[in-house]
Amino acid sequence: MIHNTAIISNKASIGNNVTIGAYTSINDYVEIGDNTVIENYCEIGYATPLAENKKLVIGANSHIRSHSVFYQGSIFGDNLVTGHRVTIREKIKAGSNLQIGTLCDFQGDCVIGDFVRTHSNVHIGKESKIGNYVFIFPYVVLTNDPHPPSDTLLGVTIEDYAVIATMSVILPGVIIHEHALVGAHSLVKSDVPPKMVVAGNPAKVICETAKIKLSNLNESAYPWPKHFHRGYPESIIAQWEKEFGC
Amino acid sequence: MIHNTAIISNKASIGNNVTIGAYTSINDYVEIGDNTVIENYCEIGYATPLAENKKLVIGANSHIRSHSVFYQGSIFGDNLVTGHRVTIREKIKAGSNLQIGTLCDFQGDCVIGDFVRTHSNVHIGKESKIGNYVFIFPYVVLTNDPHPPSDTLLGVTIEDYAVIATMSVILPGVIIHEHALVGAHSLVKSDVPPKMVVAGNPAKVICETAKIKLSNLNESAYPWPKHFHRGYPESIIAQWEKEFGC
Amino acid sequence: MIHNTAIISNKASIGNNVTIGAYTSINDYVEIGDNTVIENYCEIGYATPLAENKKLVIGANSHIRSHSVFYQGSIFGDNLVTGHRVTIREKIKAGSNLQIGTLCDFQGDCVIGDFVRTHSNVHIGKESKIGNYVFIFPYVVLTNDPHPPSDTLLGVTIEDYAVIATMSVILPGVIIHEHALVGAHSLVKSDVPPKMVVAGNPAKVICETAKIKLSNLNESAYPWPKHFHRGYPESIIAQWEKEFGC
Repeated sequence: MIHNTAIISNKASIGNNVTIGAYTSINDYVEIGDNTVIENYCEIGYATPLAENKKLVIGANSHIRSHSVFYQGSIFGDNLVTGHRVTIREKIKAGSNLQIGTLCDFQGDCVIGDFVRTHSNVHIGKESKIGNYVFIFPYVVLTNDPHPPSDTLLGVTIEDYAVIATMSVILPGVIIHEHALVGAHSLVKSDVPPKMVVAGNPAKVICETAKIKLSNLNESAYPWPKHFHRGYPESIIAQWEKEFGC
Repeated sequence: MIHNTAIISNKASIGNNVTIGAYTSINDYVEIGDNTVIENYCEIGYATPLAENKKLVIGANSHIRSHSVFYQGSIFGDNLVTGHRVTIREKIKAGSNLQIGTLCDFQGDCVIGDFVRTHSNVHIGKESKIGNYVFIFPYVVLTNDPHPPSDTLLGVTIEDYAVIATMSVILPGVIIHEHALVGAHSLVKSDVPPKMVVAGNPAKVICETAKIKLSNLNESAYPWPKHFHRGYPESIIAQWEKEFGC
Repeated sequence: MIHNTAIISNKASIGNNVTIGAYTSINDYVEIGDNTVIENYCEIGYATPLAENKKLVIGANSHIRSHSVFYQGSIFGDNLVTGHRVTIREKIKAGSNLQIGTLCDFQGDCVIGDFVRTHSNVHIGKESKIGNYVFIFPYVVLTNDPHPPSDTLLGVTIEDYAVIATMSVILPGVIIHEHALVGAHSLVKSDVPPKMVVAGNPAKVICETAKIKLSNLNESAYPWPKHFHRGYPESIIAQWEKEFGC
C-alpha cells in the first residue's frame, strides 16, 4: 500500500492499512492514523522553525489528495478529507471530519471545530477561529491585519453553522455569528448578527436567513441542516432533526 | 518520448508521437490522441466513483502543462492546451481548441463548446454550460447553489463570444447572452442581454458593447473577433471577416 | 545536497552549497547562486519560445519552495524567497529580496524592484511595473487589457511603499503612487495619488493614509516603515528611521 517511490522517514509513525502514493514524502514526526490515504506528490510534515511542536497528527480514515503540502506542528482529527494541492501550515488544531477543498491555503495558527467544510481556494489567515458545521465557499479570504503591513494579528471568528459564500473577504477581528449567511462577493467590515444575511461591498444586513426560501419548495432554506444532509453521519442528522426539525 | 520515471497503465491507450514527462502518471482507461504532450508531475485519469464512464479522452495535438490533474470520465476535443496545475474533474464534455489557464479548477458535470479560453485561476462550477468562443478572465467563479449549502445545482450559462472579466462572480442560473461583456470585479445576479456591458456589485447594464472603443483607434472594440485573431486558424478568421467585418 | 531523484541538466550552472530537493528538475541555462535551496517537485528553467534570453538567473541565498515552476528568460536578485507552487514566467527582471507567496502567478514581461513582497495567490499581469518596498496581499490581480480580449497590453504601475490589500483588482494602465493604500476588495479604475487611501467598487479616495491609526497605539500606521520591520536588514531599518522617524 506504500508506493515504492514514496520517501518515508523512519521517524514517522504510520498506522495500519495506510496507503501512500507515488513520489510522496512523509517526513519526521508525522503520525498517520489507521486506514488513511495520502495520494501522489504530497509532502507531509514539511519542516518549519515556526512549529512549536514538531509533530503532525493526521487522524484515522483520512484522505489527502495529490500535490498537497502539510507542515509539521498541526493536529487534525479523524476523517479529514482534502482536495488537490492544499497548503496547510503549522499550529492548526482542527476537529474531526474537516473537508478542505482543492487549492486551499491555511496559513496556520488557527482553531477549527468539527465538520467544517471549505470549498476550493479558500484562504484562512492566521489567528482565525472557526466553529463547528461552518461552510466556506470558493475564493473566500479571512484576513487578520487591520493596517497592512503590520505585526498586529486580529483574526476572524466564524461561529457554528455560519455560511460564507464565494469571493467574500472578512476584515480583521470580525465575528460572523452562528447561523449567519454572508452573500457572494461581499466585503464584511463589521460583525454579522446570528441568523442574519449580509451582502454587498461594504456588506449590509439584508434580512433574516429564515426569509430565504428553497428554490423548489415554499420552505425556508435556513437553518440549512433542515434539508442538507449529504455526507453527515446518521447520528448528526438525528440530532439536527430534534434541534431544527428536518 | 515517454520519460522513464513516468508510470503508465497498460490499460491506457497512447497515440503516436505522444510525449509524457517525468514523474507523470497515466492511469487506466485514458485515451491520448496523436502528437499530444503531457508534461511532468501530471496525473491523468484520476479515478473517481462519480464518473459515469471511466474513460478519459484527450484529443490529438494537445498540450497539458506540468502538475495538472485530470479525472477520468471526461472528453476533450483536439488541440486542448492547459497551463500548469489545473484540476479538471469528471463528466465534462468539451469541444476542440479549449485553452485552460494555470490553476483553473473545473468542477465537472459541464458542457463546453469550441475555442473557449479561460485565463488563470478560473473556477467552473458543476452544471455550467459554456458556448463557443467564450473568454473567461482570471479569478472568475461560475457558481451553482442558490442557497448554500444545498443539493440544488443551478448552473450558469455563457453563450457564444461572451467575455467575463477578472474576479467576477456569476450567481446560479444566470445566463450571459451572446457577445455580452461582464466588467471586472462584478457580481452578476441576473441575466445579461446580448451585446451589452454590465459591471458593478451588483452588476448593472452600463451600455452596449459597441460603445467601447479600442484604446488606440476610433473603432469599436466589440464584437472582438473584428480585431483579435491571435491563435485562431485562418478558416475561423475568414468566417469572422464575413460575419463581423474585420 | 542534491537529491538523487533530482534531474539536473548539464547545461545548468549550480553555485556552491546549493540544495536541490527530491523529484525536482533543473533545466538548461539555469544559473543558481550560492547557498540557494530549491525544494521538491520544482521545475526550474521551464523552456518557452517566448523567452528572449534562454537564461534563468536565481540569485544567491534564495529559497524556492516545493511544487514551483520558474520559466527560463528571467532574472532574480539575491535573497529571493517563494511559497509553494508559484508559477513565474519569462522576461521578468526582479531586484533583490523579493518574496513571492504560495500560489502566485507572475505572467512575465514585468519589472520588479527590491524588497517587494506578495502574499498568497497574487496575479501579476504582463507589463506590470512594480517599485521597491511594495506590498501586495492575497488574491490581488494586476490586469493589462483595457478591452478584453485584445492585443493591447497596458500594464499597471505600483510605486515605492504602496500597499494593495486583499482581493483588489487594478485596471489596465492605472498608477498606484508611492505610499498609497488600496483597501480590500476594491476595483481601482483610476490613478491613486501618493499617500492616499482608496477603497470600494469602484474605488474612491477615502482619506490620507496618515489618518489611519495603529490599532494598539494612538499613532499613525503609515508610512508603514515607521513600525513594520520584520525581515528587513538593519541597514534598511536605519535608513527608514532617518527618513520616516521610527
